[in-house]
Amino acid sequence: MVARMTNLATHPPRVAEHEVLPLLVARWSPRAMSGEPLAAGALARLFEAARWAPSGGNVQPWRFVYAETGTPEMAAFLDLLEPGNRVWCVRAAALVVVASQTTLADGRPHPTHAFDAGAAWMSLALQGSSMGLVVHAMGGFDRARAPAVAGLPDGWAVQCMIAVGRPGRVEDLPERLQAREGPSSRKPVGEIAFRGRFGAGA
Amino acid sequence: MVARMTNLATHPPRVAEHEVLPLLVARWSPRAMSGEPLAAGALARLFEAARWAPSGGNVQPWRFVYAETGTPEMAAFLDLLEPGNRVWCVRAAALVVVASQTTLADGRPHPTHAFDAGAAWMSLALQGSSMGLVVHAMGGFDRARAPAVAGLPDGWAVQCMIAVGRPGRVEDLPERLQAREGPSSRKPVGEIAFRGRFGAGA
Repeated sequence: MVARMTNLATHPPRVAEHEVLPLLVARWSPRAMSGEPLAAGALARLFEAARWAPSGGNVQPWRFVYAETGTPEMAAFLDLLEPGNRVWCVRAAALVVVASQTTLADGRPHPTHAFDAGAAWMSLALQGSSMGLVVHAMGGFDRARAPAVAGLPDGWAVQCMIAVGRPGRVEDLPERLQAREGPSSRKPVGEIAFRGRFGAGA
Repeated sequence: MVARMTNLATHPPRVAEHEVLPLLVARWSPRAMSGEPLAAGALARLFEAARWAPSGGNVQPWRFVYAETGTPEMAAFLDLLEPGNRVWCVRAAALVVVASQTTLADGRPHPTHAFDAGAAWMSLALQGSSMGLVVHAMGGFDRARAPAVAGLPDGWAVQCMIAVGRPGRVEDLPERLQAREGPSSRKPVGEIAFRGRFGAGA
């Protein structure tokens, strides 16, 4: 496995304001992948992680449709991506379509299907990061065509696509992506958490 | 701190099908809380955890409005809950309204605002669980009134409410909730992950 390279000039080390689980701060979304397949059973461990996420009424409205490198499905999944994502995802070991069920069993709209699927995605991402894998969610794909390509029934919506792979060499990325290859920063806690009322101090 | 009690007859221990981070399987959603306030700085650590979640374009469309026990805001937040949630949330140390921004900076609808907020919620939940706290998301609250009570501006949607507290005694819960106090099960991986096409085998 090749060590991940990050550009420290553009991506200074992350500093947490308050003490948290190190794995939460260590996870980020690299693009450099090696192109090799995953170890046997690695994908199952990612889906196992997603499985244990909480959901409204324990409905578990998330599903994962995946394609592995070297298969016809992988070519179809790659073709869904915007060119800016396809250029680095050609070295992914797998692509995953994340879908969520938009209605409850009684037919009413499900108010938290996307939110719950996001929780499952986070668990999957942390598991992959802890295994040393690249796990990178993308919004840049053909949302109109994705449901048909993944074979979604009516009542299911695509939330995102995920690239999964073994870490690769940053210098194999297109030049404009090399400088972006590093952990991104975040808003301070005081801008996302408010006491009593939105916009109040933390 | 009182040890959490679970009903092993109705809630057998969770068994992962594939090896994953133990904290993912250990996290669940208790209702029994002690009513005590949190330690100073504990809530900030939960929001710090949420802060590092990934989001489309790193927009970080999540916000958390919280009320702590003994404040006027807490009474207003409790009043938003459905009676079935209020009955155990009276012992929460804090209630949190999770909101997400439904539009991007250019005014277009944001396709992943709820999904991204769900990722931030999962990070928050794992952090709280690792600190030995009860962290329990709820969909059962007044979705029509919640935005005004939390002071949300236009363009922000409420995703869920979260109860946070110190663990308490199961026997202080209403009787019908005592039997439910334990980790819930999940669908097998083979029902949530599909190779190539929705509904195919894993």
